Amino acid sequence: MKTDRVYLDWNATAPLRPAARAAMIASLEVTGNPSSVHAEGRSARRLVEQARAELAGLVGAAASGVVFTSGGSEANAIALTPGLEGAPGQRRGRLLVSAVEHPSVLSGGRFAPTEVDVVGVDDQGRLDLAELARRLEKHFRSGIRPLVSLMLANNETGVIQPIAETAELVHGCDGLLHVDAVQAAGRFDIDIGRLGADLITLSGHKLGGPQGVGALIRRSEAIHLSDPLIRGGGQERGWRAGTENVAAIAGFGAGAAMARQELATEPARLAALRDRLEAGLAVIAPTTVIFGVGTKRLPNTTLFAVPGVKAATAIIALDLAGHAVSSGSACSSGKVAPSHALAAMGVEPSLIQGAIRVSLGYGTAADDIDRFLNAWEKLIKGLSNRMKDFAA
Amino acid sequence: MKTDRVYLDWNATAPLRPAARAAMIASLEVTGNPSSVHAEGRSARRLVEQARAELAGLVGAAASGVVFTSGGSEANAIALTPGLEGAPGQRRGRLLVSAVEHPSVLSGGRFAPTEVDVVGVDDQGRLDLAELARRLEKHFRSGIRPLVSLMLANNETGVIQPIAETAELVHGCDGLLHVDAVQAAGRFDIDIGRLGADLITLSGHKLGGPQGVGALIRRSEAIHLSDPLIRGGGQERGWRAGTENVAAIAGFGAGAAMARQELATEPARLAALRDRLEAGLAVIAPTTVIFGVGTKRLPNTTLFAVPGVKAATAIIALDLAGHAVSSGSACSSGKVAPSHALAAMGVEPSLIQGAIRVSLGYGTAADDIDRFLNAWEKLIKGLSNRMKDFAA
Repeated sequence: MKTDRVYLDWNATAPLRPAARAAMIASLEVTGNPSSVHAEGRSARRLVEQARAELAGLVGAAASGVVFTSGGSEANAIALTPGLEGAPGQRRGRLLVSAVEHPSVLSGGRFAPTEVDVVGVDDQGRLDLAELARRLEKHFRSGIRPLVSLMLANNETGVIQPIAETAELVHGCDGLLHVDAVQAAGRFDIDIGRLGADLITLSGHKLGGPQGVGALIRRSEAIHLSDPLIRGGGQERGWRAGTENVAAIAGFGAGAAMARQELATEPARLAALRDRLEAGLAVIAPTTVIFGVGTKRLPNTTLFAVPGVKAATAIIALDLAGHAVSSGSACSSGKVAPSHALAAMGVEPSLIQGAIRVSLGYGTAADDIDRFLNAWEKLIKGLSNRMKDFAA
Repeated sequence: MKTDRVYLDWNATAPLRPAARAAMIASLEVTGNPSSVHAEGRSARRLVEQARAELAGLVGAAASGVVFTSGGSEANAIALTPGLEGAPGQRRGRLLVSAVEHPSVLSGGRFAPTEVDVVGVDDQGRLDLAELARRLEKHFRSGIRPLVSLMLANNETGVIQPIAETAELVHGCDGLLHVDAVQAAGRFDIDIGRLGADLITLSGHKLGGPQGVGALIRRSEAIHLSDPLIRGGGQERGWRAGTENVAAIAGFGAGAAMARQELATEPARLAALRDRLEAGLAVIAPTTVIFGVGTKRLPNTTLFAVPGVKAATAIIALDLAGHAVSSGSACSSGKVAPSHALAAMGVEPSLIQGAIRVSLGYGTAADDIDRFLNAWEKLIKGLSNRMKDFAA
């Protein structure tokens, strides 16, 4: 970002890390299809396998458990199928998801709409574990093996879900647990074994790798996919056909390696910036509501609203003033539909329309926060003056 | 390719065009999710839409008909579904494919195995049009609306299929025609309207763009996909969810633009090189068989065998001598299974095991052909000497 703009929309997409850019540019010099047996093919294969090891290292998995995909949405689509088997033949009869999942999970993958349970969340956006337990028990009594998909951290609020407790419930009912960790990976330390997840989804461009690449990572070789989404050439151990995206995979590996190196320091640094932001917001408008503030959140994400301020217009004004933030998730920001996550948390529709997401990353400095707060203060004062004029 | 190696495996993957590389590297400086409404998002969106126009231009389609995918296999997987509707509600009841299709088409997509007809080919690898007509008529009488998927040019032999004749038969039976044009696009002039295809699949890395990107292009807005393969954020007009791979799409667009510019001259240049190669092969071993030589082929592809010479060992020897060629398609070259395309053409198993593919592209010069022929001559003479020693 060699501009004077302030980019605070890292949950939509993170600027490419220099190490990831360098790995991609280097990979563009390698000609070869990773499936070809000649020297050119083997050079491409090496890049893919190096990246696979980096991804595995980021989440404590075996490299053999990593399947590269074209992104988080595809990884979720691969995982969410009745054909995901805990052991050969053990198909899934039911999908249970939280009400605040990403649209690619809420869509239900290859489960029929009648085979999907949506489990509610509390006012902080945390999964209702009691409701999940009741539903799991009911399916267990009917002999149905479930698949549960629960995100690690929400893309809009940053709220972190109780994955370990969920895993215990799921595994007690012969279920499998898929965790969409797209927004969490690289932002705090994740270990697939400690989480208790059977499969996790990662995305390249959320951790400073490139767009168009993701991974579906499984904890155990025993997990079997009987119906791959894209069939053909047998790549990725049969989980995902198609010539590998060597450049994007190389960039993803390099980005993951950098993210992993920073795990010891970045979460605390980002949390301090986030706290500075939220303190500033409260001073500018004491009526500011920060969503999910009462529970554990990502260190980099603030979703807030000020009653009476509409996000759609505020975001355009901020953009003109040089600040990139968003109203909820990028993939739905083009639409008029309000945030389904906030609706599930019981937030009033008028307040949902005011929700603005500010998300930080490795390139964010204190100065960015201060400049944003300055711009926000001007905007709020301007609005308040206009409201006074209107009332006068 | 700044090496002294001879790369003649362009059908597996083409070296990245300089223009595509430049477009990708430039795109890496653009931060922004194309779905974001702020300036950064709009910059990314512009790159995607520029590339969409280039792709549309390459095949004579409207930009609004272009759906970007992660590659040819995914594009095929999206298209091959009963949910592909000629008009809303007009589902497909049957899939008909040729016996020489790419594995991603032969897999049948989302049709049940019992809903797929495999139509034979003649000894040159051309579709049996009479068999197709018989099967289409039978389905028509049963009130079944079919989907036919026929490749434009075969990846192994380069044989070109009678698409226009097929289109006439298909449309006469209320069918839709999908054409996998992965190996043909950029190698000769394609116009989706003149072809008579309803949908075509393209791949980035076969025409000098990057790996990991492709497109599914439809001729008419009337064609409706009721069951997208990857659902979620609503990108690509609902045909394909997931954040767009901006870098790969930008490279694909630039590669397609270059390929289009060269259409007036490259096919003839490549055909001359291919003829030089085939003449040389016949001199070196008069028993050489060139597959599909009796019909129209791509100008860049030669699949040949010499009785008694095994491809697997020849390819390793050639690789050590600095020459990259393949035994059939890259996605199956790691496997022991012999070419299904040659088997469908009625080629003897022992000859199939000798099949070597030499494929050329924009960077191939006469010197590459001559060096390869030199290496091939040495290999054949060496084998023949050893056979004499063995006999002595």
